[in-house]
Amino acid sequence: MKSSRLLVSLAAFVIFCGCSTVRFDPAAERERLLRRDAEWAAAAAEGKDVSKIVSYWTDDAVVVPPGQPIVEGKAALRTFVDASLKMPGFSIRWKSEKPAFSPDGKMATLQGSNEMTMTGPDGKTISLKGRSVTVWRLEPDGQWRCAIDIWNDPPPATPAAK
Amino acid sequence: MKSSRLLVSLAAFVIFCGCSTVRFDPAAERERLLRRDAEWAAAAAEGKDVSKIVSYWTDDAVVVPPGQPIVEGKAALRTFVDASLKMPGFSIRWKSEKPAFSPDGKMATLQGSNEMTMTGPDGKTISLKGRSVTVWRLEPDGQWRCAIDIWNDPPPATPAAK
Repeated sequence: MKSSRLLVSLAAFVIFCGCSTVRFDPAAERERLLRRDAEWAAAAAEGKDVSKIVSYWTDDAVVVPPGQPIVEGKAALRTFVDASLKMPGFSIRWKSEKPAFSPDGKMATLQGSNEMTMTGPDGKTISLKGRSVTVWRLEPDGQWRCAIDIWNDPPPATPAAK
Repeated sequence: MKSSRLLVSLAAFVIFCGCSTVRFDPAAERERLLRRDAEWAAAAAEGKDVSKIVSYWTDDAVVVPPGQPIVEGKAALRTFVDASLKMPGFSIRWKSEKPAFSPDGKMATLQGSNEMTMTGPDGKTISLKGRSVTVWRLEPDGQWRCAIDIWNDPPPATPAAK
């Protein structure tokens, strides 16, 4: 009797154990993470709702913009986004791909490319392209959020053939 | 008899299960990853052993150097390192910090700063500083290797006060 009770407890634990490893479905999670990033990109491209844009980063997120100081934490990120959106002619768009996950499906990376445009002092449009890497965490509320966000400039445009 | 055999099997599975989740010791792994990165930095700073330098990346690693094409995979990385080490006066040094892990301890990130120096066409030393993010994977042989490697330029040096 005692041993069969133990057996039931062990079976329950094994099922729990099994569930916690089986839970991660790579194909579904790839889809979910890419969709989440695309939603974020859409909110950023729209450039209106700062709270929404900022909500895709973790509270402790680190953003490393080329040629600018590192921005760390939600409050600083809000200021950063706010200031960006106020720049004359500012807009941003990006597209990410190549999701890669930790074996437990709780940390992930995306690679992507982005483009920022703004109006220069001479009234001309400035366009800055970049290649990005983002690191994501699946947070306790079941939502993916970006914890590290870095990009840099692509090679200079190929000069015309001589 | 049958049930006690099942019990033993279940117990073994539970132990296996338990081990695979308990195995990750964050403090020890932080130490181990930082030491591994420091070894890599030392090999790169020495700038002699291309095979050793390249061995710290995963076979499918992606390196995103600012202003240069993305370098992907071991063979391309070997060519990239080889070409860098052949540049006149080339040297590189870096230091990483802030290790962060996936809950299973099998994926990690480091943040860091680096400096590359080389001799310019006029014979003067050029120094390029950067802020880096690296993503690491604990590979089946139990070794941490870098899977994504990106950095960008810091803000321009502060101009002298007016």
